[in-house]
Amino acid sequence: MTLAIAPTGLICVGTFIDAPTHEALRVRVDHLCVIDGKGRIVLLQPLPAGTTEDADKIRTLVAEEYRSFEVLVMKEWEFMCPGMVDCHNHAPQYHQIGTATDYTLFNWLFNVTFPNEAKCRDLDYARDLYTKLVRRLLRSGTTSVQFFATNDLEPTKLLVDICAEHGLRAFVGLVTADRDSPDYYIQTTSEALSLTESFIQWTLAHPAGRDALGEQDALIHPVITPRFVPTCTLPLLHGLGALAAKYDVRVQSHAAETVDQVLRVKALHPAIGGGRDVAIFESCALLTHRTTLAHGTHLRDYEVRRMAEVGAAVTACPIANVLHSRAVVPAPRYKALGLKLGLGTDIAGGYSASMLGPLRMAVVDDRTDSFVEVVREDRPLEDYPDPDPKTEWPVGHVWAYHIATVGGAEALGIAEHSGTFDVGKHFDAVLVDGNREDQAYEYWPEETKAIRFERWINTGDDRNVKGVWVRGTRVIWKK
Amino acid sequence: MTLAIAPTGLICVGTFIDAPTHEALRVRVDHLCVIDGKGRIVLLQPLPAGTTEDADKIRTLVAEEYRSFEVLVMKEWEFMCPGMVDCHNHAPQYHQIGTATDYTLFNWLFNVTFPNEAKCRDLDYARDLYTKLVRRLLRSGTTSVQFFATNDLEPTKLLVDICAEHGLRAFVGLVTADRDSPDYYIQTTSEALSLTESFIQWTLAHPAGRDALGEQDALIHPVITPRFVPTCTLPLLHGLGALAAKYDVRVQSHAAETVDQVLRVKALHPAIGGGRDVAIFESCALLTHRTTLAHGTHLRDYEVRRMAEVGAAVTACPIANVLHSRAVVPAPRYKALGLKLGLGTDIAGGYSASMLGPLRMAVVDDRTDSFVEVVREDRPLEDYPDPDPKTEWPVGHVWAYHIATVGGAEALGIAEHSGTFDVGKHFDAVLVDGNREDQAYEYWPEETKAIRFERWINTGDDRNVKGVWVRGTRVIWKK
Repeated sequence: MTLAIAPTGLICVGTFIDAPTHEALRVRVDHLCVIDGKGRIVLLQPLPAGTTEDADKIRTLVAEEYRSFEVLVMKEWEFMCPGMVDCHNHAPQYHQIGTATDYTLFNWLFNVTFPNEAKCRDLDYARDLYTKLVRRLLRSGTTSVQFFATNDLEPTKLLVDICAEHGLRAFVGLVTADRDSPDYYIQTTSEALSLTESFIQWTLAHPAGRDALGEQDALIHPVITPRFVPTCTLPLLHGLGALAAKYDVRVQSHAAETVDQVLRVKALHPAIGGGRDVAIFESCALLTHRTTLAHGTHLRDYEVRRMAEVGAAVTACPIANVLHSRAVVPAPRYKALGLKLGLGTDIAGGYSASMLGPLRMAVVDDRTDSFVEVVREDRPLEDYPDPDPKTEWPVGHVWAYHIATVGGAEALGIAEHSGTFDVGKHFDAVLVDGNREDQAYEYWPEETKAIRFERWINTGDDRNVKGVWVRGTRVIWKK
Repeated sequence: MTLAIAPTGLICVGTFIDAPTHEALRVRVDHLCVIDGKGRIVLLQPLPAGTTEDADKIRTLVAEEYRSFEVLVMKEWEFMCPGMVDCHNHAPQYHQIGTATDYTLFNWLFNVTFPNEAKCRDLDYARDLYTKLVRRLLRSGTTSVQFFATNDLEPTKLLVDICAEHGLRAFVGLVTADRDSPDYYIQTTSEALSLTESFIQWTLAHPAGRDALGEQDALIHPVITPRFVPTCTLPLLHGLGALAAKYDVRVQSHAAETVDQVLRVKALHPAIGGGRDVAIFESCALLTHRTTLAHGTHLRDYEVRRMAEVGAAVTACPIANVLHSRAVVPAPRYKALGLKLGLGTDIAGGYSASMLGPLRMAVVDDRTDSFVEVVREDRPLEDYPDPDPKTEWPVGHVWAYHIATVGGAEALGIAEHSGTFDVGKHFDAVLVDGNREDQAYEYWPEETKAIRFERWINTGDDRNVKGVWVRGTRVIWKK
């Protein structure tokens, strides 16, 4: 079993690649990075010319207090990049990943998903499932995840324990639903509220939680989690809003996801802001600077602007959005309106456990958002419009990687700690080996580091992930 | 090095999964399949109840003449499915796969692609590149490929040799271009025609070609390959049409790919069918029942109908179409008009060497082809249209797998030999192991074979490919 090893200090030498903005990659070759015993980057600077790869000589370059640290010298074909942030992941749905991709939302929930979630009441089943998921996420290079668990307390606590045990930075929500759900998988309003409060208290007091470690260093965070408006009565939503204020914790839900969901919400609450998710959440004090709403493909500009004002975020789930919503998040449009934007696997609405899947699909989603006109009918021949004068598309792998790291960190309120390599931040990092036996693509020694990064993003996978650190703690290591 | 092992006869027992139509998967569990020494399926039937897994006992179930054959008993978590057909692949571009995905077509050709193709004049470089590519394709479960090589004869012959050596069924084209190309990578018209004719003659006479083995059993086929209309003068296209008729060989090119390409063709030949690719190819005798045109995202219905009448095919390249064309092939629409439709990686326009990439993206492309309307502006609140009454989307993984196997075989004229498991066909097969250590997804023992197949298609990769056969010849085998 993979178990997190507490940070003991690390001196790391080689290439560091991150995307502090969406416009350009920052590639720092021949750099020296020191991560202290609290898992924070305390030094990151170019190596002096002529530095050898000898560990003892490298130790002479750092302050006395760091000289006992482990030294990691990256190979020519290795580089370090920030761990990815998965802002939307339904842990209990992991069992169905890669299947049932052809359902519309409500059919998918009632026929496939709710039965799967309820199975987690069997704690042996849940332990096996959640352990496999958490290991899978870490070895894929994901270092922070926001989870929907289930309606039940014990399996949700179990998920927290498993995340803490494996060293995954996790935002975990006990899901609430007191209407429009099957008999076997529904709470009363008071149950939903008391379970939520119990879970918040228990998680804040967890050895990896806020009460024990402080907000800056907490590994585990509780999240208030109404599934979505259709399955929550207004009294429940108001009660959850009160809990969000009482404990000052994060909120997550779904919003503006599919046409059938948008229409159902409108029919349920026509009097609140025209029956729109964002207005309903705001009316219940659930739209705060700590709120993340998944999907948001059907948001209107005024809603995006309002969310941006409040400091709330949207999680784009590019695979699930296309498969189940037949729609996309227009990422540049939302970013231009000032919205915080993260990326999610949406397991199991999306079929990729690795963030590389949504990352690639975010690029595709952008390209599909403004298809050129295609004339298919047998009308008299017509001209096409003048082609776009652009020579490159604006949303590429750097844009998407920025959203998958910095964007996700902003969305979850951890941008001070994660997303890039900068002094003062936690070391949330992935060591990518671009030259592993049996990897999914070829290694060409003559290529630049930036090309190696691009190739891994577009054609690589978890086989290239050699090591992963969360808060300076090594959580994955392959020989 | 992987080298093809000639067929020696195989008795294979286990689960056979194929997609003879786009509507339903055919899952045959506990079946017995016999592949003779010519690589053809001569028997495929249910196992008698109570059959043990003992090889000697299994041999007693088949005719005397097959009893010396090797016996392969699949494990519970293994299944056999047809090898995939990659109808469009630029071999010399393999070096750039996964990079430069953010260029528009002509910029990409002149700045990135032509320089890479010309490098294959260095035969050592080409040998290394093509060998890596062919092995990569086979181990990804691709058993037939239609290649664009380069403008040059020797590296194109080398590609043929490497395909034959590794046992890949290959349709190989020497690319022709006598205009609108850079000085260092262009042919004269007469050079283009004489190189093409030399290549056809040499390939037909190759030990794996038609003259040696007959059309039914040829492993290697020459393909007449004008790159696309913009780089070919009319005399060249007419000359190539004459060669296609003289040698009765296949033709491939690109058509209706991007807006800039469509406009350039229209400007070059406004008098031929309104300046449209399909009309131009037909006017030069290059549109035959042996023709495959890549992309075709901007075809009009009358062009699709005409291609269907002639028996020509389109190769959809779902990843490249979105990345470089910002458009999709509307696969159900084209199929409904009677067109043969195959699928291609379009290396390196697409970033996936495995056909699983285009296969998944074919599903995405279909979903994006008719997005529901999204109202984003701050107009007064409006209703959405009624949601689509469908409960499932029509194009899913079965649809896409059908196109990737049967569709491709139809497009390349090998549907009698490949695409499904039926008596009389060649054994072009992939043994998928759904329970390999370090695979990309979890193995759940209780699941049905159909779910295992779906999960591999959506979340698996080449790690699950344990064995591959082309024409009954084992070309990949992992312990």
